Amino acid sequence: LAVVVLGPQAWWFSEEEVSEALGGAPVVRAGHKDFPDGETYVRLPLELRDVKGEDVLVVQSLAPPQDKSVWQLLLLVEAAVGAGARSVLALVPYLAYARQDKRFLPGEPVSVKVLLKSLAAFGARALFTIDAHSPKSLEHFGGYYENVLLFDELAKAVASGEGGWELAVIAPDAGALERAKALAEALGASYDYLEKYRDRLTGEVKVKPKALSVRGKVVVIADDVISTGGTVALAARSVLEQGAEGVVVAASHALMAEGAFAKLSEAGVKAVYALDTLPPKEGVRYVKCLKPSLRRVALSGLFKL
Amino acid sequence: LAVVVLGPQAWWFSEEEVSEALGGAPVVRAGHKDFPDGETYVRLPLELRDVKGEDVLVVQSLAPPQDKSVWQLLLLVEAAVGAGARSVLALVPYLAYARQDKRFLPGEPVSVKVLLKSLAAFGARALFTIDAHSPKSLEHFGGYYENVLLFDELAKAVASGEGGWELAVIAPDAGALERAKALAEALGASYDYLEKYRDRLTGEVKVKPKALSVRGKVVVIADDVISTGGTVALAARSVLEQGAEGVVVAASHALMAEGAFAKLSEAGVKAVYALDTLPPKEGVRYVKCLKPSLRRVALSGLFKL
Repeated sequence: LAVVVLGPQAWWFSEEEVSEALGGAPVVRAGHKDFPDGETYVRLPLELRDVKGEDVLVVQSLAPPQDKSVWQLLLLVEAAVGAGARSVLALVPYLAYARQDKRFLPGEPVSVKVLLKSLAAFGARALFTIDAHSPKSLEHFGGYYENVLLFDELAKAVASGEGGWELAVIAPDAGALERAKALAEALGASYDYLEKYRDRLTGEVKVKPKALSVRGKVVVIADDVISTGGTVALAARSVLEQGAEGVVVAASHALMAEGAFAKLSEAGVKAVYALDTLPPKEGVRYVKCLKPSLRRVALSGLFKL
Repeated sequence: LAVVVLGPQAWWFSEEEVSEALGGAPVVRAGHKDFPDGETYVRLPLELRDVKGEDVLVVQSLAPPQDKSVWQLLLLVEAAVGAGARSVLALVPYLAYARQDKRFLPGEPVSVKVLLKSLAAFGARALFTIDAHSPKSLEHFGGYYENVLLFDELAKAVASGEGGWELAVIAPDAGALERAKALAEALGASYDYLEKYRDRLTGEVKVKPKALSVRGKVVVIADDVISTGGTVALAARSVLEQGAEGVVVAASHALMAEGAFAKLSEAGVKAVYALDTLPPKEGVRYVKCLKPSLRRVALSGLFKL
C-alpha cells in the first residue's frame, strides 16, 4: 500500500537502504532522460510497481542544476497523482532556493514560495526536508511539513574525527547561531558566532568570534550549506590567526561548487563533515541522512505500509 | 497604468519595437543572474518603473535551457504579483513542454499541464502564446488564453523568397496537416502530408506525400518546431528523390538544436523560414512575431494603457 520512488537526484541512495529504513517498503527508481532539445523527461516505472491507491513517497534532492531538479520533482509528483496514487509525499533532502525566502530588494520574487506552492499545487500532501535555511519559509507549502534536524548525527562524526581536542563551534554570522548552538550542545562544546571588524592597520575586513577565545581549540565552523566556500575560508583563516589549533567544517549540505574544496584546503580547513543530502563530492566526510529522515516519514503516519 | 517586462529569454526583442506595438507602453528589462551555485535569480527594476496597481505583461520565451526559462518566468510572475501589480499577463512566444501534452506511456507526467498550472497558480491572469503544439492543452491554464497563429506572416516571407515556383506545402505527418493547410491557403498552394512506407527493394523506411505529386514543385515542409531537424531532413531527401524542384522549411519555432542546420543543408534544404520566437540561430530567415502578437494582447482589452 506504499511505494518509494527515487527521483533522478537521489541516485547516490541505495534501494536497500531506503527499503530497510521503511520496514521493507518497495522502492523503485524513476526513469528519466533529456530530450535532444533539452527538455526534461521523467516516468514512473509502473510496470515494476503500480501506485494506484497507494501512498507514494518521492525522494528527490534539489541538487544543481537546481531548475532541472525542481522540474523533475514537480513532474514526478504530477505523474504519481496522474497514476492514481492515494497520496503523494515528498522527501527533499536539500531544498534549493531556500535562501531566497523574502524580498531582500524590491522587485524580487520569493523563490522558495514559488517552489513550495508549485509542489503543493500538484498534489504533494506532505513535505520532509533536512535543515531548511529558514524553517519558517516552509509554511508557504501549506500542507504538512517537517524540517528534519540531524545535528546529533553530525556531532557524532565530528566527535569521532576530532576526538581529544577541545572543540569550539562557531557560526559564520549571528543568523546561523541557533545551528551552531544545537551542534555545540550535541558535542558538549562551547559556541559563538563571528562578527566582522576592520583591521585598523591594514583596513582589511576580518572576522572574529564575538566573545569566545579559540586559542588552542579545534574550531568547528557550523553552517547549513557550503556553496563556494568563500565565507568559510575567510572564517577559517581568521580563527587560525587567532590561535585556533585547527579548523573543521560541519554542514548539513555540501554543494561544494567548483573549486570550493581547494579554497577550503588552502584556508587551512582540515576536514569537511556533511550530510549526504547532495551528490558525493571529493574530500567530504559524509554522514548518512536517509535513515533518520525516513524514520520521521514513518512516524508521521502519512506513509502507511 | 501598464508596463511590459522583458524577461531574460526575450533579449533579442527591442524595447522600441515592443513599446511601439503597444501604443507607447513603458518597457523594462528584468534583471537576472545565476548564483555561483547555479540558482536562478530575477528581479523587476522597480526603480525604473513601479508596477503597483498596473497591468504587467511579462514577455519570456521558454528557450533552452527550458527548465531555467520556465523557472525565470514563474519567478517573474510571482515578483510582479508581490510588487502589487493589478494583473499579470504572460506572452510566451515559444511554449516549451507543449509536446508532452498527454500520458503517452503509463507513469508519465503531463508536463505542459505542470507548466500551465504553475503559471496560473502564481497569479498569471492571461496567457498569449504562438502556435502551441497542441492548442487544446492550453485549457490546463484555466484562465484566459490565446494561441496566436501567424501563418500569413510566414507565407508572405516564403512567397517573397520562393516567388515564381509552384509551391506544395507538406506536413511531416497527418497530425500536422492543419498547420500545412493553413500555410497553403495563405500561399494559394496545394498541400498534403507525408506517409511512411517501406522500400520493397532495400527495406528502408521512406516517406512520400499521400496523394500530391511534388514533381517540378518547390516543397515547403511545414511544422511547428524544428528541433534536431531529423524528421525534416528525411522528408526533404524523400521529396527531392520524388522529383521536387527544391525544398524549404517553414516553421513557427526554430529550436535548431546543435547540428540541425548542417543536417538540413546536407539533406538539400535551401532555406529555413521561421518566426523569431526563439533566440536567433545561424542560417534561419526570420519573420518577426512580436508586433502581431502584441496586437492580440492589446485587442484582448486585458492590458490597459
